[in-house]
Amino acid sequence: MEPTTFTLESINLDHNRVFRDAVHNYIYVENQLIMDLIDTKEMQRLRRIKQLGGTYQVYQSAEHSRFSHSLGVYKIVKTMCKDNCIGKNLNDYDKLTVQCAALLHDLGHGPFSHCFEDAFDVFHEDFTIRIIEEDSEVHQILESFHPGFSKVVSSVIKKEHPNKVLVQMTSSQLDADRMDYLLRDSYFTGTTYGQFDLQRILRIMKVQDGRIVYKKSGVQAIEDYILARYHMYWQVYYHPTARSYEQTLISTFRRIKDLYKEGYDLGDIFYLEPFLKGNISSSQYVDLDESVVLYYFKRFTVSDDKILKDLANRFLNRKLFAYDDAKKEESIRLQCINQGYDPRYYVVSDKQSQEPYRYYGSEHAISEIEIIVENGTIALPEVSEIVGAITNSKKNKEDNKVFYPK
Amino acid sequence: MEPTTFTLESINLDHNRVFRDAVHNYIYVENQLIMDLIDTKEMQRLRRIKQLGGTYQVYQSAEHSRFSHSLGVYKIVKTMCKDNCIGKNLNDYDKLTVQCAALLHDLGHGPFSHCFEDAFDVFHEDFTIRIIEEDSEVHQILESFHPGFSKVVSSVIKKEHPNKVLVQMTSSQLDADRMDYLLRDSYFTGTTYGQFDLQRILRIMKVQDGRIVYKKSGVQAIEDYILARYHMYWQVYYHPTARSYEQTLISTFRRIKDLYKEGYDLGDIFYLEPFLKGNISSSQYVDLDESVVLYYFKRFTVSDDKILKDLANRFLNRKLFAYDDAKKEESIRLQCINQGYDPRYYVVSDKQSQEPYRYYGSEHAISEIEIIVENGTIALPEVSEIVGAITNSKKNKEDNKVFYPK
Amino acid sequence: MEPTTFTLESINLDHNRVFRDAVHNYIYVENQLIMDLIDTKEMQRLRRIKQLGGTYQVYQSAEHSRFSHSLGVYKIVKTMCKDNCIGKNLNDYDKLTVQCAALLHDLGHGPFSHCFEDAFDVFHEDFTIRIIEEDSEVHQILESFHPGFSKVVSSVIKKEHPNKVLVQMTSSQLDADRMDYLLRDSYFTGTTYGQFDLQRILRIMKVQDGRIVYKKSGVQAIEDYILARYHMYWQVYYHPTARSYEQTLISTFRRIKDLYKEGYDLGDIFYLEPFLKGNISSSQYVDLDESVVLYYFKRFTVSDDKILKDLANRFLNRKLFAYDDAKKEESIRLQCINQGYDPRYYVVSDKQSQEPYRYYGSEHAISEIEIIVENGTIALPEVSEIVGAITNSKKNKEDNKVFYPK
Amino acid sequence: MEPTTFTLESINLDHNRVFRDAVHNYIYVENQLIMDLIDTKEMQRLRRIKQLGGTYQVYQSAEHSRFSHSLGVYKIVKTMCKDNCIGKNLNDYDKLTVQCAALLHDLGHGPFSHCFEDAFDVFHEDFTIRIIEEDSEVHQILESFHPGFSKVVSSVIKKEHPNKVLVQMTSSQLDADRMDYLLRDSYFTGTTYGQFDLQRILRIMKVQDGRIVYKKSGVQAIEDYILARYHMYWQVYYHPTARSYEQTLISTFRRIKDLYKEGYDLGDIFYLEPFLKGNISSSQYVDLDESVVLYYFKRFTVSDDKILKDLANRFLNRKLFAYDDAKKEESIRLQCINQGYDPRYYVVSDKQSQEPYRYYGSEHAISEIEIIVENGTIALPEVSEIVGAITNSKKNKEDNKVFYPK
Repeated sequence: MEPTTFTLESINLDHNRVFRDAVHNYIYVENQLIMDLIDTKEMQRLRRIKQLGGTYQVYQSAEHSRFSHSLGVYKIVKTMCKDNCIGKNLNDYDKLTVQCAALLHDLGHGPFSHCFEDAFDVFHEDFTIRIIEEDSEVHQILESFHPGFSKVVSSVIKKEHPNKVLVQMTSSQLDADRMDYLLRDSYFTGTTYGQFDLQRILRIMKVQDGRIVYKKSGVQAIEDYILARYHMYWQVYYHPTARSYEQTLISTFRRIKDLYKEGYDLGDIFYLEPFLKGNISSSQYVDLDESVVLYYFKRFTVSDDKILKDLANRFLNRKLFAYDDAKKEESIRLQCINQGYDPRYYVVSDKQSQEPYRYYGSEHAISEIEIIVENGTIALPEVSEIVGAITNSKKNKEDNKVFYPK
Repeated sequence: MEPTTFTLESINLDHNRVFRDAVHNYIYVENQLIMDLIDTKEMQRLRRIKQLGGTYQVYQSAEHSRFSHSLGVYKIVKTMCKDNCIGKNLNDYDKLTVQCAALLHDLGHGPFSHCFEDAFDVFHEDFTIRIIEEDSEVHQILESFHPGFSKVVSSVIKKEHPNKVLVQMTSSQLDADRMDYLLRDSYFTGTTYGQFDLQRILRIMKVQDGRIVYKKSGVQAIEDYILARYHMYWQVYYHPTARSYEQTLISTFRRIKDLYKEGYDLGDIFYLEPFLKGNISSSQYVDLDESVVLYYFKRFTVSDDKILKDLANRFLNRKLFAYDDAKKEESIRLQCINQGYDPRYYVVSDKQSQEPYRYYGSEHAISEIEIIVENGTIALPEVSEIVGAITNSKKNKEDNKVFYPK
Repeated sequence: MEPTTFTLESINLDHNRVFRDAVHNYIYVENQLIMDLIDTKEMQRLRRIKQLGGTYQVYQSAEHSRFSHSLGVYKIVKTMCKDNCIGKNLNDYDKLTVQCAALLHDLGHGPFSHCFEDAFDVFHEDFTIRIIEEDSEVHQILESFHPGFSKVVSSVIKKEHPNKVLVQMTSSQLDADRMDYLLRDSYFTGTTYGQFDLQRILRIMKVQDGRIVYKKSGVQAIEDYILARYHMYWQVYYHPTARSYEQTLISTFRRIKDLYKEGYDLGDIFYLEPFLKGNISSSQYVDLDESVVLYYFKRFTVSDDKILKDLANRFLNRKLFAYDDAKKEESIRLQCINQGYDPRYYVVSDKQSQEPYRYYGSEHAISEIEIIVENGTIALPEVSEIVGAITNSKKNKEDNKVFYPK
Repeated sequence: MEPTTFTLESINLDHNRVFRDAVHNYIYVENQLIMDLIDTKEMQRLRRIKQLGGTYQVYQSAEHSRFSHSLGVYKIVKTMCKDNCIGKNLNDYDKLTVQCAALLHDLGHGPFSHCFEDAFDVFHEDFTIRIIEEDSEVHQILESFHPGFSKVVSSVIKKEHPNKVLVQMTSSQLDADRMDYLLRDSYFTGTTYGQFDLQRILRIMKVQDGRIVYKKSGVQAIEDYILARYHMYWQVYYHPTARSYEQTLISTFRRIKDLYKEGYDLGDIFYLEPFLKGNISSSQYVDLDESVVLYYFKRFTVSDDKILKDLANRFLNRKLFAYDDAKKEESIRLQCINQGYDPRYYVVSDKQSQEPYRYYGSEHAISEIEIIVENGTIALPEVSEIVGAITNSKKNKEDNKVFYPK
């Protein structure tokens, strides 16, 4: 394998495969390697993991999966690889590398995403790496392309790849991952908040001094993207009802863990047990998806443990917790205790805050959105009145809530 | 309870509840009864049943559930109930009745819809009725509104309600159910085929002689709807890849049934067993959803039965059957047998055909789309050159395929 | 100039020019020749000619011009010229030729399009050719690219170019012109009728035996296009109110001609006079646009001729004619005469009919939409049940109306 | 006429009239008065005035007129008048008043809007008032509804109506005028920038203490609107190419004025002369529209005055001025003089600046966007981190440019 002489054309399929997609319309797959990766069980599992966790309790039609998102990220990265974007700055081997990284970047997500991570102290990034590097169908396909390729791909996700452009394409303040999820979540929730001008942003990307920078003429498209992100967070991702649903889930997981520790017989929990024991192989990780969790929860709705039974029922049948300002947590806790609720599971608080934009400055160029000016580049907040004002205000929006039974 | 003096206003909520929906934007719920029905476990279960069965294997973003569809149908029926549509011809009791019927009409769908029905010889219509009429949360809520109300609602779904207008609103050739699913499936697949002018059709509806008829000025909106339906069938619902996925599922169910009959130990199949035994209560029915089936299938991927193991793996990890013209079934069967495949599960054929429009004529007015003309009404194909031509051609499009392992 | 060795790259601009467009989003112009053609006064004049004549009297927001349509057709043809469509079958010289033809194909339209043609017995196709071939800015630019190029371009529009593929791209039953206007008119009227899946149709185009044919897998996208066209005709283009507006215009032109023949002093009608005299140079033709006609009409609202004054006022201030079935023409004529209206201008009839699809059969392959089958190609109606039914029904929809003052 | 007992129902049309609109889909007109106003020559003239002046030189499809915008504003105001918005706080007479004001608010716009105002020192607001109050078809229709009604309507536009809610509905920082033009201009330019959630904003409007205030739950929809406005200004309305086109127009008008002052014979300029003389009646004002100006400009392209001829030609045939930073004005002026250009017409500068949000504070409640909080209301920047940051930064974005011949 000589990366410098490799051409994408050499692995072209006879006939393109095509995926219809509501956001990007047609997603074409031109080569066998990508097609084989899509057909692995690790990728297909992502069809059984919702992109937005509990958000579909508020935005009822936001039922899309991480699978379609992953293909969307792949599609955006492939568009970046074209000549009219930054393709001329990348060789075909790097293009293939970053396209694989884009497709695979979410492999390590557990069921209900960050709830699951919080409950079991795992990080999806770690498992994405492990699934790629350890024994999996994905791993075998990458290695059979050429030995060592799985580490090349995972180094992009670990942000350790020597070509920082590849890293910026898939994880930065303005990467294909965020671009796809804003557009996609906006489409499936039916809100207008997440819309921005993707095509324009792709047209103003350049590679300069080994990193991605942006032409000044398109600063407003970037501003619009920053604000789309800001609004999606508060309007969709941090919506209190979605968080209420997620808190029910976290409490249920907490009860399961506590019962397991006490030696309580939870029945057949084959796929969940590794997470309770704490030593999880990557193939055990892949075995867990949302349908399995939902199945166990259904069994728990007839559990003898009153708390587990109640929580599982709340989760499955949408008997959500009420919520209030976190300042009232103490008085709410007392009330709940009086009513016989165990506050470990029934009075939970949750803090959310968000910087609309993180300002690194041009010295930390890889992390900053840099804009081309006459003598080089400067950081976005220096050019954009709006982003500058937001960044300088130092006021991160916060929302602290306590959740409890009605 | 005096239906004639009942007013919807009397059961209004203090504050409307709202569901965000990608198709209808905001769906407001104004009264407590509807809100209580939405919050039942039978309705919430529909979040775990996909609207389009296996179609998301082709149209990857078509991952929406029957829950959001059900609210969509409710929304369209509620719009029909407004004064600028046919509301003036309905009293408030009938309006509430038909809105309940719209919301609940899909309760009886099993996991993966018609595949499940084919495999276990059940009909979703029957179970919708049973869930409403037998003991369920839905039943209790309807009866507590007033005794006997559950039968009033179910009579609309059974097409036995004396007011045929209510029946036509929810099940006819141009009903709220079809209107919502064409728009919804079109939106989530990302195709343009299913789009039509809903608002215009609602504006030309009238009630005349106790049934719904349409103003001639809007015939083209109806033509467009008929053709939208036709195209969605062939482009989306009958797509061979989706059918391949569904055949894998049907074969898996068939293998399960055969093994069960032989007394093979399938492990813990608590929620599935009633369907194998054949005597299903409505609450057992409700216990089965797609997450449960997916869980069992995951267990079957490590079954000792080679066929079950292979089929479950194909289904979960998208190793789909290939397909060809059904004429080649015999030669394909021989090949498969030679390769050691049991043809009962591995060589399956599937016929699909569709009338673009079913012509009843104005004598069977309830079933026909009738258009107002000077002296009464006539059937759509008499007015529309396009629908007339299609109806007269007597050629139903057919597609007969055989599916088998590659 | 050696057409066979010419490369588009050799005339590339340093920086692409871009036009924002509501239908195609970004339309990039890569070379100087196209840019120079766009900047001619003949092309800029099309900004002052509405695409849809009188239709904006019904669909109020359909105020778009032939200029934006012309760029849209250019954009679609350029997309056809890509490798993933039929680009591999065309050399760069032919690509440039057909792109010029696409851009320029509507140059010869007069103000209010077919009304003007009817009134003055001119054909826009003739004037498009004359403007390209005779002395004009467009002509000079084409000739300065290389002598004789203007005739090469006009031969595509005349359907005489030896490469029939170029002719089919710009004028056939499924050409870039119709594709753009359906999408564009649909967007600006705000109807859904004209939408179809452009991208899919472009993906199934092939060149075979020197002409354009289509893959069978996409027949439904073509059906959808045929029906989109059918519906746009009846719902938009032939809308009776739009035709009423146009009849007012035709009557006004008729009165102007009659008065001119009688030697009546119409005041300063400098730009209109050549059309009344009947010997029009192509530069006189270009001088007439809708703003000039509207100016003259405004002057005529204070004319001493009572009929001209009334008609001009009706046209400018939307006092439209009423309409009825043409069968009633005679009784309406009598009524109008009784009320003192001159029937030559005040009782006008108009017939519209349309074949939803014209069936030529595969022998007349250039004019037919041909579908690839195993042993060659067959005509669309042989493959498509819907188009077949419509074609066989032999019923062309007709609408004959008489227009008169209320 | 007793305003307090007047009901809208009493003037209902037998059949609603409907306008199809690309932005609002269907705009229904229910009563005769509104219909009569739409059919006046003063309203119909707005079809011949583009909404966006020169912007269609950049955004080629932005060719929509002030007529369709005016109907759009009427539609939004009518939606505000519904019970689920603020309709319960308005009597029918006030509803009719504000709907008339919405429809008529742009009557006084001249051709090419602010360019024309700058050139001839007129204000469209003044002429809107004069057309309503002085002799016009609009005036007669309002007065025939009841004597004095024209002054009631114009008092809303003058912001003098005693019910400040009506004033806020049509002219404030968050009024129906801005809401329609952002959505409309966004649609017709094909940008995403101007999109915001109209329906949500209408749902959170309340009347409190005699003015419009907003529920806190919808602050993000308002933020989104503020930023939509900000982006549309810089991305569309202040686009340098559009301003270049407008500067050409202003220079042409300036040359006309100077020549007229010198007594130069400009030929027949009947409709323009009142503006050069400086004493304009409202009916003379109405006689001038864009088609008339374009006609005169076409005549001027063959003027003997070299400057007028050149400028008119530049304007009609898109030979636009180049532009640069206004700092370079002096050196550019010298260059142009050296090349023989008269700098009065050929070196023009233009400053644009914009406050993203004007902060009045809750004391000036009528002018401020007020948000409901527990103890009353506070101004938007106090609630919104984003708007607060922008308001506090005190940096108005500025763009100063000089325009000159290439």
